[in-house]
This record gives sequence, structure tokens and C-alpha cells, in this order.
Amino acid sequence: MSMPIGTIHGVGLGPGAQDLLSVRADRLVRNARHVAFFRKAGRPGQARRIVEGMLRPGAVEFAMEYPVTTEIPVSDPAYNASLARFYESCTERLGTLARAGEDVVVLCEGDPFFYGSFMHLYARLAGSVPVAVVPGITGMSGAWTACGAPMTWGDDVLTVLTATLPEEDLARRIRDTDALVVMKIGRNLAKLRRAVALAGREQEAWLVEHAAMAEQRVTRLCEAEAVTPYFSILLIHGQGRRP
Amino acid sequence: MSMPIGTIHGVGLGPGAQDLLSVRADRLVRNARHVAFFRKAGRPGQARRIVEGMLRPGAVEFAMEYPVTTEIPVSDPAYNASLARFYESCTERLGTLARAGEDVVVLCEGDPFFYGSFMHLYARLAGSVPVAVVPGITGMSGAWTACGAPMTWGDDVLTVLTATLPEEDLARRIRDTDALVVMKIGRNLAKLRRAVALAGREQEAWLVEHAAMAEQRVTRLCEAEAVTPYFSILLIHGQGRRP
Repeated sequence: MSMPIGTIHGVGLGPGAQDLLSVRADRLVRNARHVAFFRKAGRPGQARRIVEGMLRPGAVEFAMEYPVTTEIPVSDPAYNASLARFYESCTERLGTLARAGEDVVVLCEGDPFFYGSFMHLYARLAGSVPVAVVPGITGMSGAWTACGAPMTWGDDVLTVLTATLPEEDLARRIRDTDALVVMKIGRNLAKLRRAVALAGREQEAWLVEHAAMAEQRVTRLCEAEAVTPYFSILLIHGQGRRP
Repeated sequence: MSMPIGTIHGVGLGPGAQDLLSVRADRLVRNARHVAFFRKAGRPGQARRIVEGMLRPGAVEFAMEYPVTTEIPVSDPAYNASLARFYESCTERLGTLARAGEDVVVLCEGDPFFYGSFMHLYARLAGSVPVAVVPGITGMSGAWTACGAPMTWGDDVLTVLTATLPEEDLARRIRDTDALVVMKIGRNLAKLRRAVALAGREQEAWLVEHAAMAEQRVTRLCEAEAVTPYFSILLIHGQGRRP
């Protein structure tokens, strides 16, 4: 007697508001018997926070707690090794659930395939158990909607960068694009500011914190002082052709 | 006695599947008394097609038919003038409805602020009547989900281009990015192919047609022959850092 195998669903939750989940994501989350999500140890976890009040009673929660985030530099081989072991162990647990016939919903902020931690599980699970992905509204869409200005017009080039890049690379690419999104600002805000200034674009840049959430805040970069690093996105709007 | 003023809602519908509308968009579309959407004359219109069967009985539909699309070259001033008149007249009608107290849902494929025609209405309406925007899952998210491979890892740079750019610009930017999305392929497929080849990246490129729809098709660029131009997106996946 063979048991039907379960599916691991990587479900994009969008930028943060519950009613910005897709109808498909909303159904999966509300009906899930098993829910998994990443979080920093000791924190509630942003993905879990988005679905607060939506889970059915008795849903089994699997909090996947990052072993390291900023304690070890990314360049240290120990950083990669520790994360690899972590993703392996999460994958093992999810695979075991699937082989026991259970579906699992993995909660993903934004879109699962766009700079998401789920991708590390996906790459390890795909081929061994069924994995399905539900795209989501990206954090950057939430941010440009919060700004209240269209992002890309006509032939505008959009460049998406992470603030983890070297300052010179950032400056060169910020100079060479029409519209700009910078993610993963975290501890890199001072460097990012310098890069935007080097590119001569300080007056065009906006910082959006907690887009689509109650704490949403939109500030011109040149007026921004203290910034919630993790949930902030920097934007420069395209100004292309428009009739 | 003053009438309460209505709101123009620019509602992102996502890439094409009805259950990829957000919960907020789904509610707005199903309850709308007035629905507006762009289409090419004589065509049903992609945005309208997505919501087929969702509109309430008696919903008033306003099909905004582009006066020109590819008949006049974009560089011809008559092209811009004709489109400007068209957007003005749509804006006027929407403004009149809002001032008469009616809410209107403008159906937008993908995300309204990401290369969307709605932006031309938004720029004209904002400040005169209330306008609200609901972000949506972009067509590119639909495309990379269809491909079944994560798009951006670690520090990957993502560049979004329109195939309307000159071949040399395309080639230079395709060479200089990790992950790539090309939109608006239309009649530019042959040029885009040459640009991808100049950049030496033919083996990495995928074409996704009708992402998230019944007709969805994913093909390697080097194997693609006839392509449905309008709804296709070209992708190159990032290959960045991963533990």
C-alpha cells in the first residue's frame, strides 16, 4: 500500500497586507495543516506575522530559524557551511512530511523566486517531492505603490540591486539606469547613500519602509534619518516617454 | 447638497490566472458597478479576458480602445498626439463618473505602475479625483514561476528591459547583468535574438508565453520558432551566491 505523496507549496504572501495575498495563496494558507516559515531566532518572523489570525486551529507550525544572519561575515566559509546545513535540515523535515502524505505551506514574503530564502529549499527539494510555487506581489511593487508614482514608462530600463554590492558597482549601475530598486539595505544604508550621491541622483531617491503595512513610511532619501533597515527599499522612478 | 465623490481604482490583475488576483483586487472587481479597461480595437482585451465571469450582472463596461498601436511609428509626433488625446478623453469620462459619485475599477494586467497604460490616466487624474492603486503580481513573476527556476540569488543584479530599445543598448545591458527580463517583445524578437547572441547568452535565455494562463508555454530561446509576440517575456536567470 503506497501513501499518496504530499506537496510542498512555496506561497508568496506579497508585501505585507493580508488582502494583498492572492486568492490562491489565501486559500492555501487558510486550509494548511502544516505551515513552515523562516525567522530570525527570537523574532516572530515577518512572513508568519503577515498571516496572523489566518491559520486554522490546530495547524502545525514549523519555524525555520536562521542559524546565522549577521554574526558571521558573508565572506567567511563558515557562514555558507552553517547555512547549507540549516537548509539541508529544513529540507529533510519538509521532505519527510511530504513522503508521509502531508502538504506543507511554506510562507514566503513577497514573491518566492525573487531573492527569497525559499529558493534554497526549492533547489534541494525539486525532483524528490512535488513542489508548487505561487507567485506573489513583490515588496518592490508594494514600495512603488506606497510612493504613489508610476515606476517605469515607455522604454525605461529598471535595475534591481542589493545594497550588499560594493559602493563603486552601486554608483555605476545607479548612474546607468532609468528606474532603480535597491533591496537588502540593512547595514548598508550609509554606503548606499554615498553611491546614490556619486551617481548624482540624491534628489530623485525615495526610501519606503514597511510598504503596505500599518507602519508604512515614505521619505525622500535626502531627508531620511533613522531608517528601519530590514524592511526598507530604495526607489528612483523612471521618467520615460509618455504621451 | 454635495454628492460624495467616487474613487478611480487602478487594480492590478496579475499575470493572467483569476486566482492570482489579490484578495483586495478580487473584491473590488466582483463588486464593481463600473469597470474600465484598455484594449486594441476589435480585440476582447487581455485585462477584460482575465476577469471573464467575475463581473456582477449589470456592471457597466467602458472599453478604452487604443486609437493607434503599431500603425504609426512611435517616433512620429502624430503617435504621441493621438495617444494624448485618447488618454485625455478616457480621463474625462472617468473623472465625470467619479464626480457623479461613482467608483470605477480600471482593470490592469500585471501591476498598474509597472509599464502599465493605467499610469497615463493616473498622471492625469491624480489631484483632481481620488485615485487608489492596488498592486498586482507582475507578468515577469508569472513568467519566472512558469519557468520553475528561482530568478535572483544573493547579490544578483536584475535588469528589466523593453525590446523596443536599440540592438546595441540591449546587447550591452544583457552582457552587464546577472538576471534579465525583457518585456514588450512584440515585433522586436529578431532584434532581441541578435542582441542576446551579441551578449553571448543564447544558451541561458528562455521565452515564456502566456504565463499563468491555459496557453502557457516555456521554450529555450535557441529552440523558439513562432512566438506569440505580445504576451511573451524573455528571461535569463541569475546564478548568484547560494549556500
